Amino acid sequence: MPLYLDNNATTALDPQVLDAMLPYMQAIYGNPSSVHRYGRLTRDALEQARVQVARLAGAQPGQVIFTSGGTEANNLAIKGSLSGIAAGRIAVSAIEHASLLDAAHAMEKRAWQVDVIAVDQNGIVSEGALSAALRDSTRLVSVMQANNETGVIQDVNSLCRITQAHDIWFHTDASQAAGKIAIDFAASGVNMMTLSSHKLYGPQGVGALIADRAIDIEAQLQGGGQERGLRSGTENIAGIVGFGMAAEIAQQQLDSRAEHTKNLRNALQRELDNISSIRTFAATADRLPNTVQFSVQGFDGEALLMQLDRKGIAVSSGSACHSGKTEPSHVLMAMGVEEQTARNAIRVSFGKDNKAEDVTLFMDVLKDIIEG
Amino acid sequence: MPLYLDNNATTALDPQVLDAMLPYMQAIYGNPSSVHRYGRLTRDALEQARVQVARLAGAQPGQVIFTSGGTEANNLAIKGSLSGIAAGRIAVSAIEHASLLDAAHAMEKRAWQVDVIAVDQNGIVSEGALSAALRDSTRLVSVMQANNETGVIQDVNSLCRITQAHDIWFHTDASQAAGKIAIDFAASGVNMMTLSSHKLYGPQGVGALIADRAIDIEAQLQGGGQERGLRSGTENIAGIVGFGMAAEIAQQQLDSRAEHTKNLRNALQRELDNISSIRTFAATADRLPNTVQFSVQGFDGEALLMQLDRKGIAVSSGSACHSGKTEPSHVLMAMGVEEQTARNAIRVSFGKDNKAEDVTLFMDVLKDIIEG
Repeated sequence: MPLYLDNNATTALDPQVLDAMLPYMQAIYGNPSSVHRYGRLTRDALEQARVQVARLAGAQPGQVIFTSGGTEANNLAIKGSLSGIAAGRIAVSAIEHASLLDAAHAMEKRAWQVDVIAVDQNGIVSEGALSAALRDSTRLVSVMQANNETGVIQDVNSLCRITQAHDIWFHTDASQAAGKIAIDFAASGVNMMTLSSHKLYGPQGVGALIADRAIDIEAQLQGGGQERGLRSGTENIAGIVGFGMAAEIAQQQLDSRAEHTKNLRNALQRELDNISSIRTFAATADRLPNTVQFSVQGFDGEALLMQLDRKGIAVSSGSACHSGKTEPSHVLMAMGVEEQTARNAIRVSFGKDNKAEDVTLFMDVLKDIIEG
Repeated sequence: MPLYLDNNATTALDPQVLDAMLPYMQAIYGNPSSVHRYGRLTRDALEQARVQVARLAGAQPGQVIFTSGGTEANNLAIKGSLSGIAAGRIAVSAIEHASLLDAAHAMEKRAWQVDVIAVDQNGIVSEGALSAALRDSTRLVSVMQANNETGVIQDVNSLCRITQAHDIWFHTDASQAAGKIAIDFAASGVNMMTLSSHKLYGPQGVGALIADRAIDIEAQLQGGGQERGLRSGTENIAGIVGFGMAAEIAQQQLDSRAEHTKNLRNALQRELDNISSIRTFAATADRLPNTVQFSVQGFDGEALLMQLDRKGIAVSSGSACHSGKTEPSHVLMAMGVEEQTARNAIRVSFGKDNKAEDVTLFMDVLKDIIEG
């Protein structure tokens, strides 16, 4: 298989996580809603995973709502928190993931208005930009903890102080941040936080919305009343157990993983900086330790990605979640990057299993391509 | 572990299904939206599973929308098909699953009106009852293929002919039917059909809505545009692969599984019929081969369930999806069952791995309890 340098798109399931899941795919089965022993065993597993995920997020277990992934958590945060109140305004940063942006715009059908918070040339939401986007009727702000493309980290705590002063709820999409940098729901002051399992070596199809109990969230999936009535549907026990274990390991290994991937990223960064036709985006900003996004002058990102793929290296061009899309990255465009440069973007995102020689191999192949 | 007789609540993952999933939890990982080889491999797996699920349902692969489960599929069927059109009326049978009933009632907030289609004392929706529930502004009818509690099977094909004559869409929740009796989306005339993986020995957390492409479904989860834009979110590849394999096996073994469980159920039925204090619900109706629901006079169902559990047998009282609920089954109440009798309900649902001696053991324990 090719060298995998696309860990912000998805990660390989950690073998330890698989080991934790397997009993729930073999001997232990059951519907957590069942009263009998099978139900109790799966309920216990569910609640243990809730504790594990809460710990990673710096939250209380009772604040964790399991979902089918980050996309559902982002949708639930926006639609669930706003459905029950009179229509007003939502302010979202220009660089949010499509699942956040599109969920916000979906509320326009229900008379909500969406304000877009500008970012600077590094993709950072300044306190000034946030303040400028707020109106009297703003009810919710959503600014992601760290961007999936550039890796840029927002100062969510400072931004929260502004919204708190105006009694505005704050949601942050921490899908990319969790497991890569420390996150702390309680200390940050955010009211809602999105997590995704498959970005931190857990299984796909699981995520969570961490939510302040003071917010009266309206369920977006009706049914059996699971997750305190906020997210119905028979729980994906094996998946949730895997998410819990992945969260526990991510918490334990947070520093070592961050250091390891940062060493790789910095080594790559130094190599990239030596090539004059390469421009790194948000190079001077505080970024996720594992992520670097850059453009190579004269090389279309999608075409370069495919050349790299043919030569055995897997990276991403823009957001991996838009298969076949041809528009330039909305993140880079919001940062004021010129369109052709944005179209040339390539993202390398390291994971815990990458090695120093991966940087060498990547650079050898990249130079080979750009030197023709 | 106790003897498991609660296969309508959830089923044990088939080891063959797990074998099919494991490569996607080990060597093969990736985000299907990625352009590189990892993306292609997971996209291929996704599309193969789509074919497998379509075959089981008698549908075209292009009609399959993968979801996080039956609850999401039911919600998508109702909300997705109706969100884009002017508010009118929905007619749903009185015995639908909570995820269907509550999704329908959720549309009342958006000016839709819900009509409930009555069932007879066997829990059957007659053509007359359906016709009586239709109004000029009825846009959608939902009647489940088979009931989770009683196992009663509806004549969906005949009911469809009525709605077709009035240009009304027909949705059927086939979560309990799929894998137990033949289902055929194309031949039945239904426009939408819900499937659930974990009811047929596939993993939890996966399901599908099969939908006529002529219906303009509005996505309920916004984001990356997966599933033709109808259901965003990174696909749960291992889960979907498992669902696909479970569907393929279910199709191959449909007759043998049905015969096997029917033999067990009929053997149990004969034993139950010999006890005068036991009343079987819908005993004369066409039922799923594996299901029997009955009451024991003088024994509260929930208490009896717990006694059985202590003696090593796992069954269900009402719907397994309502943990801790104390109301009598809405299914039995709709059938005109007297409330106390409904409260006494016990459901036994056999699975492919049950054996003849399980019937003997269950009856020994049950008689032991009711004879004190």
